[in-house]
Amino acid sequence: MYSNVPWRLVKSLSRKKEREKTNLTVAEGPSVVINALESGIKINAVIVTEEFAGTDRGRKLHRAMTQHPSPGKYFVVSSELYNRMSSTKSPQGALCLLNFPFCFLSGEPQDTWKHSLDIVGVDVQDPGNVGTIIRNGACVGASNIIMCGQSADPFSPKVIRASVGMIFKVRTMFQEDSMSVLQNLHESGTMLYKTVPRKGIMPWEANFRSPSALVLGNEGQGLGPDVLELPGTCITIPMPGAAESLNVAMACSALLYETVRQRIMAGDI
Amino acid sequence: MYSNVPWRLVKSLSRKKEREKTNLTVAEGPSVVINALESGIKINAVIVTEEFAGTDRGRKLHRAMTQHPSPGKYFVVSSELYNRMSSTKSPQGALCLLNFPFCFLSGEPQDTWKHSLDIVGVDVQDPGNVGTIIRNGACVGASNIIMCGQSADPFSPKVIRASVGMIFKVRTMFQEDSMSVLQNLHESGTMLYKTVPRKGIMPWEANFRSPSALVLGNEGQGLGPDVLELPGTCITIPMPGAAESLNVAMACSALLYETVRQRIMAGDI
Repeated sequence: MYSNVPWRLVKSLSRKKEREKTNLTVAEGPSVVINALESGIKINAVIVTEEFAGTDRGRKLHRAMTQHPSPGKYFVVSSELYNRMSSTKSPQGALCLLNFPFCFLSGEPQDTWKHSLDIVGVDVQDPGNVGTIIRNGACVGASNIIMCGQSADPFSPKVIRASVGMIFKVRTMFQEDSMSVLQNLHESGTMLYKTVPRKGIMPWEANFRSPSALVLGNEGQGLGPDVLELPGTCITIPMPGAAESLNVAMACSALLYETVRQRIMAGDI
Repeated sequence: MYSNVPWRLVKSLSRKKEREKTNLTVAEGPSVVINALESGIKINAVIVTEEFAGTDRGRKLHRAMTQHPSPGKYFVVSSELYNRMSSTKSPQGALCLLNFPFCFLSGEPQDTWKHSLDIVGVDVQDPGNVGTIIRNGACVGASNIIMCGQSADPFSPKVIRASVGMIFKVRTMFQEDSMSVLQNLHESGTMLYKTVPRKGIMPWEANFRSPSALVLGNEGQGLGPDVLELPGTCITIPMPGAAESLNVAMACSALLYETVRQRIMAGDI
């Protein structure tokens, strides 16, 4: 009955090597799958459990499929088979299989701002942090989210899940070579705002109203000396309380807020 | 050899009922234990693995114990015994046992600001979110962090770990009755800033320079109608991109940043 369900393939995609070989990844969780469908990207297959298919959200998901130009195959499977391919601790009964880079059938996410607002992660290793940064970037309408170097793969099932599927609503990419990404941005006229734990200017002293890239570093080490030597401006989020570094995703939230504040107040939208 | 190691007790404290019965909890992870020791709270026992004791951080932790007025007993145990009591997926070989509310031997965390800055969580259920909020609150020098109602227990091992031990650097409490907490704050002259996903004023239009409480709601439902009817001001973080709600911990980061910005710019520190 289930012989054509690609469960072995789905299971294998938790490994980066398999994703690179197939250019396929998995988006898991009801909201994540619904976000994928609603963003109009090409989907290869949707797989749900019998239990989930019978719920309100199961019906909502199925409706989203019928309104999608290319939703792929639809498989309703037993919980047992589903759990065999799921990579989550508490499977919620819905996942989809899709190509990356994502294929936006009705056009890429549109620009929100008059000037670009990019987020560059250099060696941001925790998938939860990368997912949170992507989610936040999508909320504020970031132009591009570029994860570089040793950063967690933004197309891994873990990151996609941590982004709650918001990755489908913002241009996201992975680039191995951090330095060339940053140099290219600089040469194209984007100001690099490098986040450092101390001695930078306050975020409100920076001018985020021209093309800007927020450059975020590794969880333990921050940005390396090679990045700090590049042209641009170092910024520091003030922490008048316990002198310890903010988590990179929280720092990103504060800086995105400051950018939005400056741009909305100036009417640059 | 290990007969006096309280491993059954440590293990039992992952359950709220046991924590309430004993007023004891567990702080796990090298940085978390070091933060606990450095903040000068009373510790009942420190338990580490033989492997960890021999590392640089193991020696750092032991030094922190010798400089602490009441570090409790020190147990060095086998990994096998340690793993039996650990509640983490990848145990790092160091935990401590301590009473809550925490007993600050050299005084409570000092006030950072001229006017109070409180964070009130109403039904914030995810321990990761509660820990992140506490960590952020400690960084900016929040006066009090009050988790209410159905919020995750801030003294649970999960929340303490998610706060990276920053909970030991900021006054944190749990109060069952959200409405009486908020009413008391209001009556004492604190402005309640209630975060809502739409139709509030922009954060930069709010005045955070007088005594302020940021009121954060449940992950799925936000703040309930009873809270929204209380006196105060509703604020909304603008999201010009994908129209979807920010995570509660990210919203907290943005609002704390705005508060710090207003207060530092005005010299209110």
